[in-house]
Amino acid sequence: MRIGVFGGDGFIGWPASLHLANQGHDVVIVDNLSRRQIDLELGVQSLTPIESIQERIKIWERICNRRIQFEQMDLATEYERVKLWFEDFQPNCVIHLAQQRAAPYSMKSDRHKAYTVNNNVNATHNLLNAIVELEADVHVVHLGTMGVYGYSDIGATIPEGYLPVQIANDDGSLHAQEILYPANPGSIYHMTKCLDQLMLAFYAKNDQLRLTDLHQGIVWGTQTAETKRHPSLINRFDYDGDYGTVLNRFLIQAAIHYPLTVHGTGGQTRAFIHIQDSVRCIELAVNNPPDRGDRTKIFNQMTETHRIRDLAKLVSNLSGAPIEYHTNPRREADENDLRVSNETFLSLGLNPITLDEGLLDELVEIARKHKARIDRTRIPAQSAWTKQIGEKLTNIETIEQVRKRA
Amino acid sequence: MRIGVFGGDGFIGWPASLHLANQGHDVVIVDNLSRRQIDLELGVQSLTPIESIQERIKIWERICNRRIQFEQMDLATEYERVKLWFEDFQPNCVIHLAQQRAAPYSMKSDRHKAYTVNNNVNATHNLLNAIVELEADVHVVHLGTMGVYGYSDIGATIPEGYLPVQIANDDGSLHAQEILYPANPGSIYHMTKCLDQLMLAFYAKNDQLRLTDLHQGIVWGTQTAETKRHPSLINRFDYDGDYGTVLNRFLIQAAIHYPLTVHGTGGQTRAFIHIQDSVRCIELAVNNPPDRGDRTKIFNQMTETHRIRDLAKLVSNLSGAPIEYHTNPRREADENDLRVSNETFLSLGLNPITLDEGLLDELVEIARKHKARIDRTRIPAQSAWTKQIGEKLTNIETIEQVRKRA
Repeated sequence: MRIGVFGGDGFIGWPASLHLANQGHDVVIVDNLSRRQIDLELGVQSLTPIESIQERIKIWERICNRRIQFEQMDLATEYERVKLWFEDFQPNCVIHLAQQRAAPYSMKSDRHKAYTVNNNVNATHNLLNAIVELEADVHVVHLGTMGVYGYSDIGATIPEGYLPVQIANDDGSLHAQEILYPANPGSIYHMTKCLDQLMLAFYAKNDQLRLTDLHQGIVWGTQTAETKRHPSLINRFDYDGDYGTVLNRFLIQAAIHYPLTVHGTGGQTRAFIHIQDSVRCIELAVNNPPDRGDRTKIFNQMTETHRIRDLAKLVSNLSGAPIEYHTNPRREADENDLRVSNETFLSLGLNPITLDEGLLDELVEIARKHKARIDRTRIPAQSAWTKQIGEKLTNIETIEQVRKRA
Repeated sequence: MRIGVFGGDGFIGWPASLHLANQGHDVVIVDNLSRRQIDLELGVQSLTPIESIQERIKIWERICNRRIQFEQMDLATEYERVKLWFEDFQPNCVIHLAQQRAAPYSMKSDRHKAYTVNNNVNATHNLLNAIVELEADVHVVHLGTMGVYGYSDIGATIPEGYLPVQIANDDGSLHAQEILYPANPGSIYHMTKCLDQLMLAFYAKNDQLRLTDLHQGIVWGTQTAETKRHPSLINRFDYDGDYGTVLNRFLIQAAIHYPLTVHGTGGQTRAFIHIQDSVRCIELAVNNPPDRGDRTKIFNQMTETHRIRDLAKLVSNLSGAPIEYHTNPRREADENDLRVSNETFLSLGLNPITLDEGLLDELVEIARKHKARIDRTRIPAQSAWTKQIGEKLTNIETIEQVRKRA
């Protein structure tokens, strides 16, 4: 298959590209290198030393004798070039990861909010627009997020994208209908993924595009079978307050005996998936496209759920690092439950890597190994969801204070 | 009150600005004049001869001794200027009409789709973003559309924005919840109004902005009490295939004995409101803002529903013009029913102008009076919803052929 990976230089895009190339697909990475530019902006870098995209693909080609092409292009702003690329490469499938993907970054300032909305919306729309304009038959696999569901407990397991509901008729009787799960985004970033959902729904309906949306949990882990094949193929690992996801942050904190920073009470329950499973899921999605005329096919791409404070305890037990409770920079519920259906991927044969089996490895092989590269000043989360919250962010509170406040 | 009317030079913005100024409010029109530029692009003009915005407000000031200010500014691209304007004018309320508002124009080509998405999304987001950044307490009244609901019959009256549903718990019992009415847009334009809804919902939740969304039906009529006060204050009247709404098109067709162009079977049922009622509704919304912390307040801004072929018959009876059935350029149901709640505006005292009483006046005072300005070549609808539909658009079919095909 000819597969374009938009955002193929990023944290998921890179291992996904290698994984798909390794399966024998003809892969082109399309990327504007924005993730690396944001590292420059924030003055941070991946914990793992990553090579340039040009060097990465050269090494891959040498080792595996399979070529991956690279096209430096901005999906959100270079629509005409995108069309030319489609005509030239004639992809069967496109993986769409070309979006700003950090919630804290999206809330950093009004400039970051505007960038995230403008970039993410136009990237998705340009992709769909070009495919319709060229009358191309391309399956689009879009990376969404569990965050589109929000984390308010509806007393039921979160289904895969569509919620069966009963609606009252005018005579008072009920009728059943299945609706796109009501969006409840918790940040500007998550909001853009909700906007994406509606755009996908429209293009599936009006133009019969074949679209898959992967509602992904928080990804942990760094390496996949392919990225392990050479030190220069290593995947990026973010730990800073904006791009570092919760487990990565706990792991590097543990590696340098920095107190594990739990936000609020740590009562937030979230969904998780290992990067190796994430790229397997993408492969499964690629191989199981919807038919023309179908609504967007939605998979929940996660394998387990955990409460944040339980994860902190787990990492604390592994490492001996203490736990510290901080003001939550986010506006969100202090505590939530989360049950999620991930039937589709399990039924397609996914055999998940669990946190229990993988976490220690990640601590030793990644966090401790590269700990000399950690910049302690970049650890605190500094992007607040509102200006009022921002004023409180410097405080470190005890769990009792946080509970009292809540 | 200090009120900014973004898009205040347009079809609704102009009479709304005059109406609010006449109520004693301090009004600033902010507009990038895009509607006039699109007239140039399409080679069409308003049936009614409209003055420049500068001339319009000069006349208004001379007649009414009330100043309306004008700021030429692009909400979607000039964020920093928007912020400066907010700091300078310190509005209490902003009416947001600064969006590309024609469904056919939004479907014209990939360029028009991209423009509509980019312009409409960034305009709304810049507005909300600036208000949060400046910590301003501004009530935003956004013009949405009945089209966000879609026109599939759910067997129930369309409520005002929020739908009560029953959701199954994991144990099979049901619980009640009220959700944002599931979006089902019929065009790129309508889709952008659905994206707006989600952005409004996020900003109401995260930042406690005070937001009102008016889900407006198809507006008919041209003049309001204020625009009638001088010939140079006349409102625009669009009749071309892109910007002309169905009643305007029937009226000018009737005026020149051009067959009334019904798309498909004309079985589509739509909601309508007179422009005079539209500006009254905006006034009512301005005077009844939500509280901080409320979800977006949604009103259905329409006063009656009609089936398109019935409207064609009504205009045909008034004028003697024949009816002709054409291939529908839109991808939509041939026939639909529509029941809509508009309780809020009625309870606030709206006393609607009905089609029955106002239509003849519109035919005589507007369409026939200015018929010498009609360009017959611009009447056919030429923007198709898909390329396949586009290929059929030149055909004129009999109602029997259309029914057979349906």
